[in-house]
Amino acid sequence: MRADARDNRARIMAAADNVFGRSPGASTDDVAKLAGVGIATVFRHFPTKTDLLEAVLTLRLERIRDRALELAGSADPGTAFFEFFTQVVSESASKLAIAEALSAAGAAAGEEAREAGRGMREAFGGLLAAAQKAGAVRADAQFPEVYALLIGASRGATAAELDPETRDRMLALVFDGLKTLS
Amino acid sequence: MRADARDNRARIMAAADNVFGRSPGASTDDVAKLAGVGIATVFRHFPTKTDLLEAVLTLRLERIRDRALELAGSADPGTAFFEFFTQVVSESASKLAIAEALSAAGAAAGEEAREAGRGMREAFGGLLAAAQKAGAVRADAQFPEVYALLIGASRGATAAELDPETRDRMLALVFDGLKTLS
Repeated sequence: MRADARDNRARIMAAADNVFGRSPGASTDDVAKLAGVGIATVFRHFPTKTDLLEAVLTLRLERIRDRALELAGSADPGTAFFEFFTQVVSESASKLAIAEALSAAGAAAGEEAREAGRGMREAFGGLLAAAQKAGAVRADAQFPEVYALLIGASRGATAAELDPETRDRMLALVFDGLKTLS
Repeated sequence: MRADARDNRARIMAAADNVFGRSPGASTDDVAKLAGVGIATVFRHFPTKTDLLEAVLTLRLERIRDRALELAGSADPGTAFFEFFTQVVSESASKLAIAEALSAAGAAAGEEAREAGRGMREAFGGLLAAAQKAGAVRADAQFPEVYALLIGASRGATAAELDPETRDRMLALVFDGLKTLS
């Protein structure tokens, strides 16, 4: 791909992330406008709206996974775990909006997005294990229920349209339940 | 309404609760079959699928609210609060399926369902206040974040398709975060 085509593609994806993250019912035209390119350019890179949504969702999941992998080397595994948990919940509203737009377009997440989702899940498991080893998270909590809590806190924050303060107080309750009992 | 019409209506609603609670994409015909009535009888009571879904969702929410009001008189407010929380989360998969079917039918919950939802929310607030007064739930937890946790645990359990054991372990983590720190 030529450099200007790569630039266009990146600009379109950033615009799509923004537009669909705020309103799942937005159109490809809205994306083209925000990206400052013609609609034909969008369709050249992403033949269907589903292709575009899938690419944006995959990018989101890959970024979350990369953040988890980055935090995995932290000298303070407890802080790393709770920071990652907080970040996933904070960003969940726009991520869920993109997933909803994909579902409304009649498509399930494709192989790329699912692969990125698996990578994210695995990296989260690594952060949990390290935080438990460091004594920051109780040792009796198993991955499936902690992961369900992450999903639940994300969906709860989104469904209840929590302001950031209430969301942080909800997370404080969740984190107290996860911390090692002293 | 004559007694046999009342019986039919109750039978149709029980069948709809069952059918749509398991698969949101089910048809009114599936409901008629399970209820053992003709499709014309279903449409006489509920002119549209939306009417039927709305009635079933309202009934669900009213039952949950009534359960909360019943528990409100308990001599052990801590147990009452945690029992109610557990029950709401356990039943959430089928309740969300009905809400999803309503949304797929292009309708938002109408006034009756919203009124029942408000009643449920209020009754939950009463259980929380009583449990806090009894010292079973920490006094610094406020209603908005505790309610968000209830919604979140419900959605997390449903989205992650948790088996009952994992769901109970997830709830144990949530409850430890809610209990009074000693």
